[in-house]
Amino acid sequence: MAPRRKGRLMEQERTAQSAHTRTPDATATAAVWSGDALTIERLALPRLAPGEVLVRTELATICGSDLHTLNGDRQTPVPTILGHEAIGEVIALEGEPRCTDGTPLALSDRVTWTIGTACGECDRCAAGLSQKCESVRKYGHEAMDDHWSLSGGFASHIHLLPGTGLVRVPPDMEAALAAPANCATATVAGAARRVALDARDTVVVMGCGMLGLTAIAYARDRGCSTVIASDVDPRRLRLAREFGATATATPKALGDAVGRERGADVVFELSGSHRAVQAALGLVAIGGRIALVGSVSPGPAVQVDPSSVVKNLTSIVGCHNYRADDLEDAIGFLQRSAVRDGLARLVSTPWPLAEIVEAVGAANAGTHPRVAVDPR
Amino acid sequence: MAPRRKGRLMEQERTAQSAHTRTPDATATAAVWSGDALTIERLALPRLAPGEVLVRTELATICGSDLHTLNGDRQTPVPTILGHEAIGEVIALEGEPRCTDGTPLALSDRVTWTIGTACGECDRCAAGLSQKCESVRKYGHEAMDDHWSLSGGFASHIHLLPGTGLVRVPPDMEAALAAPANCATATVAGAARRVALDARDTVVVMGCGMLGLTAIAYARDRGCSTVIASDVDPRRLRLAREFGATATATPKALGDAVGRERGADVVFELSGSHRAVQAALGLVAIGGRIALVGSVSPGPAVQVDPSSVVKNLTSIVGCHNYRADDLEDAIGFLQRSAVRDGLARLVSTPWPLAEIVEAVGAANAGTHPRVAVDPR
Repeated sequence: MAPRRKGRLMEQERTAQSAHTRTPDATATAAVWSGDALTIERLALPRLAPGEVLVRTELATICGSDLHTLNGDRQTPVPTILGHEAIGEVIALEGEPRCTDGTPLALSDRVTWTIGTACGECDRCAAGLSQKCESVRKYGHEAMDDHWSLSGGFASHIHLLPGTGLVRVPPDMEAALAAPANCATATVAGAARRVALDARDTVVVMGCGMLGLTAIAYARDRGCSTVIASDVDPRRLRLAREFGATATATPKALGDAVGRERGADVVFELSGSHRAVQAALGLVAIGGRIALVGSVSPGPAVQVDPSSVVKNLTSIVGCHNYRADDLEDAIGFLQRSAVRDGLARLVSTPWPLAEIVEAVGAANAGTHPRVAVDPR
Repeated sequence: MAPRRKGRLMEQERTAQSAHTRTPDATATAAVWSGDALTIERLALPRLAPGEVLVRTELATICGSDLHTLNGDRQTPVPTILGHEAIGEVIALEGEPRCTDGTPLALSDRVTWTIGTACGECDRCAAGLSQKCESVRKYGHEAMDDHWSLSGGFASHIHLLPGTGLVRVPPDMEAALAAPANCATATVAGAARRVALDARDTVVVMGCGMLGLTAIAYARDRGCSTVIASDVDPRRLRLAREFGATATATPKALGDAVGRERGADVVFELSGSHRAVQAALGLVAIGGRIALVGSVSPGPAVQVDPSSVVKNLTSIVGCHNYRADDLEDAIGFLQRSAVRDGLARLVSTPWPLAEIVEAVGAANAGTHPRVAVDPR
C-alpha cells in the first residue's frame, strides 16, 4: 500500500483470500494505518479458525500509545489497524472459546479482551508472566496478513485469536466505562496485584491522567483510606479529589504530605517522569512497594542507594501490561466503583470512524483523558 | 562499667536486683562488651516474667555484624553481651510460651529463636514485617538493664523475652549446623520468600560467603536446577560447587554465564558490593527478581533505568533480617539439606568462652565462615 498524506481519508475495497462469515455482515470497515496516513477501507471478514471469535466493535478509545504511533514517536509494523482499547459483541465464533471465568463464550455476549494473546505453555506463561508470552500477538499492533487483518479496535469488527483472555462486560455497563478497561484499568489492576495492594496501605499516586485517576479509584475501592495524589497540573489534582484522593500535592509538596502519614506503603508511579521515580524512593515507609508503571521509554537513570532498599525492605516492582485475571478484576472493579460515572466521563463523546483523524486531533489536544471512536 | 583495654579478660561478680532461678544453675558466665573490651563476668540469673524463657547456651557463632561491632565499625549500646547466632536448652520458663508451630515449649527443649522480638500488634507486625516491629528488642544488640542482661549468645545462659519466635532444633541436628540458623540461614529463607523463589527459577548467587553458600544449598533444596554462583575468590567458587552451584563465574565472566541461560529469574545479591548490585540489574530475564541482601552499609548509588525495570517486569526487593516463619523454614531446610554436613563444616571447632578474644581473632582472620564459641 502506497503511503498517503496523513489525514486524507479514502474508502477502498480490500480483497482477502478467505472471506467468509456466518453472520449477515458482509464486510468490515476499518481505519488502516499505513505508517503515514489513516485510510478508511472495506475489508473482507475472516474465515474463523477453531477457538477464534469475531466481534462487532461497540466502542474503541484512543490510548496514549496509539498517539505515539500516529505521531511518529513509536514504530509499528504496517499496514495495520490501530486501537487496542475496545469492547464489542460476539457475532461469530468457531470451536468452544471460553471466558477467563471458565464459562463458554456465546453469540451476542458483550466482551472485552486482553491486549495480547498468551499460549499458556511457554516458560513465561508458566511463570505467571503471560503478558510477556514468547509467542504473543498484540491487538492494534501487528501488520495485517491474509488470516489476521482485523486486529485493531479502529474498525467495525475485530478478530480475536485463541489464547486471548475473554471477559464478559455486563450488559448495563456504560460503553465509555468499559472500553478503556483492557488497557488503563487492567494495567492498574495488574500493578496492584504485583505490589500486593492491601486495604491497610497508605497509597501515593504519582501522575493523575487516565491511569492515575483509575488508580486512585481502585485503591479506594480496595479499602485504602489514605490515597495521596500528585501531579504538576492543578486541574488534574482537583479531578484526583473527585476520584477519591484523600490529599493532593504538587510534586514539590509531596514529600511533606507523605511525611505526615509516616511514609507510603505503596506508590503507583504512573507519570513516567524520572524525577518522580527518584522522588518515589524517598516516599516509602518500611516495607514500602513502588509500582513503576509510567516509564515506558528510555530516559535518564535514577540513583538508588542499595543499603536504603535493604534496610527499609523496599520493593521496586516494574509493571507492564497485565494478565487475563487482571482484566477480570478490572471489570469487577468498574462495575462496583463508587466513581464509575466519573470514570465514564473521562471518555469523550464518540467520533464516527469516518472522522478518526479529527478524533486523533482531539486526543492530541487533550480534550479528554480518552477520546472515543464509534466504529459501527 | 569503666572501659577496659580490648582483649583483656577479667572475671568479676555482677549483682542483679532480682536474681531467681528454678534450676540448679546459680549464676551465668558472660563475655560482656564495654564498647572497648570483652570481659568475662559472672551474672545473676534473671527472675522470669510471664512468657519468658531461660536457655542454657549450647553453641554460639560469631556473625560478621558482631565483628563490625568489636572492630569499631558499628555502634551498639553498652555494656552488652554480643552474639545473636546461638542455640540452647530450655532450663526454665514462666507462663506458657509457645513455639512458632503453636505447640507449648517445654523444659529440656532444644531451641533456636528469632534475633528480635515482635509485639504482633503494631502496624508493621500486622503488615507481615515483624522483623521491623516498632518495639523490637534485638538479641546481642541491647544495653544490659536490671531485668534483661543476658540478651546475647556469648554467655552460658540467654534470657528470651515474650514475642520471640521460638523454633525447636531436632535433637540429632549438629550444633554447628543449627547455631547460625537464626541469622544466616533464616535471612536466606526470608529473602527467598520475599522474591517467591520457585523450583523453575534460574538462580544467580552473588557472593559465596556463609550466606551465599547457604543460598546455593537452599535453592538446590527447593528444586532449582540451575544455580550460578559468583565471587572474586576462586577458593570460594570451588566451595560453591561443593554446595550445589551448577556453574560458577568470576564477576567479570558472570554476564556471559547467565546469558547462556537466557537470564536469571532470581538473583541473590549477598556480597554488598555496589558493583555487584549494578551488575545484577543486567542479569535478570523478563520477570526477574533481585533480592538485595548484602548492602547493609551506605555506599555509592547504583544507576537504574526505570523503563528497563518496567518493560522487563523486574522486581528489586530489599531483604533485611527475617520473620519467625522464615526461621522455622530455615531449620526444616537444614534438617533435610543434602549438604548439611558441608554446612556444619563451615563452622569452626568451638573456642571456650574464656578464649573469646582468640575466637574473635580467628573470625577476623577468616579461618572459617563462622567461628564458634562454646559458653558452657
